[in-house]
Amino acid sequence: MELFYSQNVQDRHILLDKEESGHLVRVLRHKSGDRINVMDGMGTMYECVIVDDSPSAAVAAIQQAHTQWGAHPYDLTLAVCPTKNSDRFEWFAEKATEMGVDGIVPVIGERSERKVFKTERLQRILVSAAKQSLKAKVPAVCAPVSVKEFIQASKEKDALKLIAWCFENEDKRVSIKDAVKAYEGKDIIVMIGPEGDFSPEEAKMAVSAGFQPVTLGSSRLRTETAALVATGVIYYNYCL
Amino acid sequence: MELFYSQNVQDRHILLDKEESGHLVRVLRHKSGDRINVMDGMGTMYECVIVDDSPSAAVAAIQQAHTQWGAHPYDLTLAVCPTKNSDRFEWFAEKATEMGVDGIVPVIGERSERKVFKTERLQRILVSAAKQSLKAKVPAVCAPVSVKEFIQASKEKDALKLIAWCFENEDKRVSIKDAVKAYEGKDIIVMIGPEGDFSPEEAKMAVSAGFQPVTLGSSRLRTETAALVATGVIYYNYCL
Repeated sequence: MELFYSQNVQDRHILLDKEESGHLVRVLRHKSGDRINVMDGMGTMYECVIVDDSPSAAVAAIQQAHTQWGAHPYDLTLAVCPTKNSDRFEWFAEKATEMGVDGIVPVIGERSERKVFKTERLQRILVSAAKQSLKAKVPAVCAPVSVKEFIQASKEKDALKLIAWCFENEDKRVSIKDAVKAYEGKDIIVMIGPEGDFSPEEAKMAVSAGFQPVTLGSSRLRTETAALVATGVIYYNYCL
Repeated sequence: MELFYSQNVQDRHILLDKEESGHLVRVLRHKSGDRINVMDGMGTMYECVIVDDSPSAAVAAIQQAHTQWGAHPYDLTLAVCPTKNSDRFEWFAEKATEMGVDGIVPVIGERSERKVFKTERLQRILVSAAKQSLKAKVPAVCAPVSVKEFIQASKEKDALKLIAWCFENEDKRVSIKDAVKAYEGKDIIVMIGPEGDFSPEEAKMAVSAGFQPVTLGSSRLRTETAALVATGVIYYNYCL
């Protein structure tokens, strides 16, 4: 199934940008009168008919709107420290999008080796992943914030808040499986630390803000693998 | 924790190859008398002392052997059709190794776009992933076989045999979650098809050979993501 993307939804028409118009008209050879499907990245998929097949600014008339198209029955925010190698973070974000995630927040920890993260490229990758997996909602990618800022901002949120750290306080942690199974709501926030783990101060602050320390099993996982395993646990419990 | 790799385990000594010796002596500046850990890729980790710090052919004396080091409580073979883009297959195999997998078989389906797959590079990646995740066993990577050959070879195997296909016979499939939960053994084989799915003939042959058709949920997943979700379901049930 072909799926196009535009955030420019007017009352009864959708305007495609230059890139999508070019793909529609030049690559796929669509013409006025053809039926196409366009998603708005916010959760709605529109069945449309092309009314202007301009290769730089195509326009489609909306025939029918499907809200919550390809939606999943939970709301998941993943706050993950960017990996040294950006490819690894992008790969994780793409895979998480295919499974189902709502927000991705690059968080910079005190022990993060990578302190800067550009989100433009990631946003394009996630639009492709959402198209590929037939979801009308593209996960929101936030600008990077520090781990402490993120914890502070999550303090009042009513959600299942989990933090995975690796090497400290092992005895206090429960399995992420048990934490998710025991939760009856649908709002979940998971924090995954950098290669060098969260600092003890960050971990302490997270626990004070209501984050529950969880373990992801006995394997030592890379940051991006840990983030994917956490996503998989949510997917398992809500979608399988 | 530093971990070295050698398959050349003699009676009381381990010989490191040129690459590992160079890493040990030139990069990490180890000398005779230093204690190091070496895994054999077959499941055993050896605590050793360096007795010859040659940068091209180092030798370590075995002090203690730990069998089943970093082992997982199941035996999983993943038969996955290589993706068009090899990176995607390698990424999946790396992540599956971190979680825990025993064998990876590139299988070529009738609808596979990629009909050739080289395993040398993948083997090196999996040695790194095993080291990274502190496992002494490196998954076996088989030479590519056709889907039908693989099914034929699995026919007599006493294992939970699952096949994930996407678009056909949806009514006959159960969730992979339910299939794994209902199984009390530890030997599992999962087949994941190519971008264009298994052919009806392959699917039929698999079912005749005892493969149970399973669904991986409502999301449309890429081949490598499907393989990872399947691995995650096993990890969830046996390790979390």
